[in-house]
Amino acid sequence: MIFEGSEKKVEIIVKDIDLRSMGQEFWAEVVAHANATILSVISNQTVDAYLLSESSLFVWNDRVTMITCGTTTLVRAIEKMTEAFGQDKIKVLVFQRKNEHFSHLQNSTFYDDIERIQNRHQGKAMRFGHKHEHHNFLFHSSCAFTPEADDTTCEILMYDLQGEAKTFLVQENLSANQIREFFSLEEILAGFEIDDFSFNPFGYSMNAIKDHFYCTIHITPQESCSYMSFETNLPTNQQTEGIFRSLLKRANPESFDTVTFNCDLKDFVSNEYRLKTVAEDDLEIGYRVNFSHYYRPQTSAKKAAPIERSE
Amino acid sequence: MIFEGSEKKVEIIVKDIDLRSMGQEFWAEVVAHANATILSVISNQTVDAYLLSESSLFVWNDRVTMITCGTTTLVRAIEKMTEAFGQDKIKVLVFQRKNEHFSHLQNSTFYDDIERIQNRHQGKAMRFGHKHEHHNFLFHSSCAFTPEADDTTCEILMYDLQGEAKTFLVQENLSANQIREFFSLEEILAGFEIDDFSFNPFGYSMNAIKDHFYCTIHITPQESCSYMSFETNLPTNQQTEGIFRSLLKRANPESFDTVTFNCDLKDFVSNEYRLKTVAEDDLEIGYRVNFSHYYRPQTSAKKAAPIERSE
Repeated sequence: MIFEGSEKKVEIIVKDIDLRSMGQEFWAEVVAHANATILSVISNQTVDAYLLSESSLFVWNDRVTMITCGTTTLVRAIEKMTEAFGQDKIKVLVFQRKNEHFSHLQNSTFYDDIERIQNRHQGKAMRFGHKHEHHNFLFHSSCAFTPEADDTTCEILMYDLQGEAKTFLVQENLSANQIREFFSLEEILAGFEIDDFSFNPFGYSMNAIKDHFYCTIHITPQESCSYMSFETNLPTNQQTEGIFRSLLKRANPESFDTVTFNCDLKDFVSNEYRLKTVAEDDLEIGYRVNFSHYYRPQTSAKKAAPIERSE
Repeated sequence: MIFEGSEKKVEIIVKDIDLRSMGQEFWAEVVAHANATILSVISNQTVDAYLLSESSLFVWNDRVTMITCGTTTLVRAIEKMTEAFGQDKIKVLVFQRKNEHFSHLQNSTFYDDIERIQNRHQGKAMRFGHKHEHHNFLFHSSCAFTPEADDTTCEILMYDLQGEAKTFLVQENLSANQIREFFSLEEILAGFEIDDFSFNPFGYSMNAIKDHFYCTIHITPQESCSYMSFETNLPTNQQTEGIFRSLLKRANPESFDTVTFNCDLKDFVSNEYRLKTVAEDDLEIGYRVNFSHYYRPQTSAKKAAPIERSE
């Protein structure tokens, strides 16, 4: 059984409208356009965090971040939101798409996606990282925009989990609590309200919120597509790097990417990993984006991987 | 303008029929099934070497090697050959496909291809190298087969040519002779008969033969898909490694793969390259296959690459 863990993501910042007041029914409709469903929601004074059948949706008054994996059609959700918000209310839109494990099973390519997005949003498309290797596509609308100083995001995308993570996470029907404990989430995310879900037979999603901060984790543990992502808008101080260090150590991946918007994230990487790729650029909309790929050097030749017919 | 340099390849070994006697008209038809055409042919007592609009075709009495790039449909040529040869005449079939620069523009995926091939040939499919990185798909028919001692192949696939190669090869309307000289081909392939073609506005293909040995070079120089491949069935002695060393130095790629069948190819790599991936396996049909990927470490962050609409 394979599942596409790699995510598509959109962030839209608006003016003159209140996104949270649009109500859960509206957001359920947006999510349905991406071919996903809402599993649960937690809220605080600042943000609503929806756990989805495929990843997560966070809604603040003036912005929305939607992350979807699998074969979801995030672009259709973007069209739905654009229509509902009104184009003149959208300050900026940033769409990202990681190269997929199984790109031939996707409903569209990134190229198809930006063609559709560009019907309504003029903008620029680019690729961070080499097309033959791990890379991240990004599209942003063209507009006069300056992000606030605390508008930062950092992501870690981990591939081929090893060691204890590899054997523990592929056990069928683990409870969300068992996975929460495996990663010591209550400890490393102390002060956050946590909402998580364990999929059957495996797979795990978590949202956590505290004030206007969010953290989100998604895990696809099966060996043929082993993947775990963590993303947050916490500022990258020592404490945040501690979270990254802890998750990286526990997940123990063969390789991983980091993606940052207006922050640095470097000091958490242990020296068993080697930096392979760094791509960095200043977007016209005021974000400095860095995409880096790290890998653990091979110590011996690997066998060929048999091809599953279902791939 | 983009062009898919990465190749698909098939090798078929037969018994009780003579492939060369099937005549050029037949081979033109096979090539047409792949959506390519024959540009020219050279022959000696042992082998016919066809230069194609997309790569190359070599025909010996008892075997055929066909390499095609672009958006060719090599699987249809395989079907045509299977029909014409008769399935009981085919001792073994090996199909390879490199991950493409622009996989979404291909007419089929490797998975589609093996599904079609398996309608007529039972066999095994596998992948050398990680799916997220440079990798090589391979399918072989399942049969009792032992290759002869001198049945070896080695390939080098070079990406992102730099230095002089980068500036020289993208000049429009270079003559084949100018490119032949740039790589000193008459010198490093001394004793070989050479047949080459320079495409308009750029791109280069070369076949060279000597006894039953062949060498073939294909170049796609444009920056968005910069690529050069070299393949031969010469035994991997010091002289052959000298050819690889010379081409690697002149092409000066950012990264490259080597693929070997029943031979070793290591000592030609200069220490400015770092070995990233090694996948090696013993096929049931008697070939030890090695896929290795080397890269030149980055010295500074790269900018994001703008996405061309035509990609």
